[in-house]
Amino acid sequence: MTGEDSLIARYFRPLATDPGAFDLTDDAAILKQKGDDIVVTTDAIVEGVHFLADDPPDTIARKALRVNLSDLAAKGTEPAGFVLTLALRETDDAWLTPFAHALGEDAARFQCPLLGGDTVATPGPLMISITAFGRVLPGRMIRRAGAEPGDRVVVSGTIGDAALGLEILKGRAAALASDAAARDMLVGRYRIPQPRMALAQAVRDHATAAMDVSDGLAGDLAKLCAASGVSAAIDAASVPLSDAARALLANGTASIESILSGGDDYEILCTLPENRFEAFAAAASLAGVAVRSIGTVIAGPAVPSFIDAQGREMALKSLSYSHF
Amino acid sequence: MTGEDSLIARYFRPLATDPGAFDLTDDAAILKQKGDDIVVTTDAIVEGVHFLADDPPDTIARKALRVNLSDLAAKGTEPAGFVLTLALRETDDAWLTPFAHALGEDAARFQCPLLGGDTVATPGPLMISITAFGRVLPGRMIRRAGAEPGDRVVVSGTIGDAALGLEILKGRAAALASDAAARDMLVGRYRIPQPRMALAQAVRDHATAAMDVSDGLAGDLAKLCAASGVSAAIDAASVPLSDAARALLANGTASIESILSGGDDYEILCTLPENRFEAFAAAASLAGVAVRSIGTVIAGPAVPSFIDAQGREMALKSLSYSHF
Repeated sequence: MTGEDSLIARYFRPLATDPGAFDLTDDAAILKQKGDDIVVTTDAIVEGVHFLADDPPDTIARKALRVNLSDLAAKGTEPAGFVLTLALRETDDAWLTPFAHALGEDAARFQCPLLGGDTVATPGPLMISITAFGRVLPGRMIRRAGAEPGDRVVVSGTIGDAALGLEILKGRAAALASDAAARDMLVGRYRIPQPRMALAQAVRDHATAAMDVSDGLAGDLAKLCAASGVSAAIDAASVPLSDAARALLANGTASIESILSGGDDYEILCTLPENRFEAFAAAASLAGVAVRSIGTVIAGPAVPSFIDAQGREMALKSLSYSHF
Repeated sequence: MTGEDSLIARYFRPLATDPGAFDLTDDAAILKQKGDDIVVTTDAIVEGVHFLADDPPDTIARKALRVNLSDLAAKGTEPAGFVLTLALRETDDAWLTPFAHALGEDAARFQCPLLGGDTVATPGPLMISITAFGRVLPGRMIRRAGAEPGDRVVVSGTIGDAALGLEILKGRAAALASDAAARDMLVGRYRIPQPRMALAQAVRDHATAAMDVSDGLAGDLAKLCAASGVSAAIDAASVPLSDAARALLANGTASIESILSGGDDYEILCTLPENRFEAFAAAASLAGVAVRSIGTVIAGPAVPSFIDAQGREMALKSLSYSHF
């Protein structure tokens, strides 16, 4: 058995609980046909770009899977499994053991088993690329396209926490150093996203369009509106903030712009007909996920506007994070 | 539009010809249910590991897709599409234009459209990770498991050329420098695999077990045998070699070991009942792909043996390439 095979057998075979994974001993996996469409999403995370070199390996594993699960939830689908590409500089047991253990825990937690993968050597940064699969009744995936003028714009959870957590890790939000609980919460939001799987059915049942907020609320809403051929007017004061983010905004450590365009939120952004909002909110409440109406879809091609408490349109220099 | 979005729109949207790709404007793609099982395979290539930094970008694109297509062919399946993760240091038009163009050509040639992907920045080596999908009637994927004692062991094409091509690129096969045609053929076999899609149906119709030869014939056969719970006796002289490889073997530039364990062949290795070999060979001939019987599956747990022209078992120090 080569080093690569024994690495796979040791760390990853225990995660391959689906019969279609063939215990990771074949060249391919099978997603059985069950009359569903298969939803496919892929997201990679790179050391020094999407996570920091000294982030704990268990949080890196969870982030790699959860950023993909977040997409599946926002599309209104149930997870069916994932494949993992892992580019490593070396096989370091002290890193791989907690990485694989946490990945297995999350795979079980979210019922998304490992189906296959590839482990390659790299002289460069660690990189974890995951392609995740969901199942949905034919034609029922919720797309970015579909928002209609008059729809409510709704977002889950709170916005901006992860971007502030990254600022803290980079040493640029010193005002928080004195409040350990707030600091830990924000760093946790950066390191370990909470994919809103519990909202998937409510999204599927009620949303006209949806996506997850990964690159910044302002930019992601602009993408959803562009795909739907609409615009939106957002009441900036309605955007849900954590107490920690609100405090940082109040004392000037954080700007509203960094919150609205910061990225890494992994919340669900969706649009709903007015008469569906109550049922959606009730379903979200049952699922234990906070949701907030933040504005309205309007006609036209304009980039969505964010309106401040004085009724003025805010000028956002940057809408979202971009790699290039 | 961010740099990442315009990069995707400019280079990759033209490749997204399948309606399930939504023109790359959504967070996920759809593989429509058609009553087939979906076969999933994933393989990544890393600069400096699987390809060389100065390899032409069009060959890198083709290799990235074809190493995955080779898996689909060996599993007896027809391509349905792929997702691409591209980790780039910079957005260099002179590199991306031929890369995307060649990827689009191969996607069309092999009827395997781009469904989605992720483009990320990296400070390290280029990396291309592809997850490819095939369709097959339920339960009909050909696995590594399934070989039976008495089956023939069959391989397509020729073995060892790509490993010799890499030796040439690394300047370690000087004897070939004088024969430009042979050198170009071997280097071409390293840079641009020929996935044996034309054999997929014959594999599906006749093979008891199959895989592609990517890490070296000896090691890959050992994996197939282990998955099937059998062994094999291989007549080393029957292993099909190109004229160029045969000449290098004769003059001592290449060793039989480097040919049998060299990797990057991307040929199909399969096992067939004796009474199916003639029909398989006829189907391969119609498809224009050479196939050769190289030995027999035997009972037992032993690592497959390679027998030389004098009837002696060869001692192979290394069975295959391993990253770790």
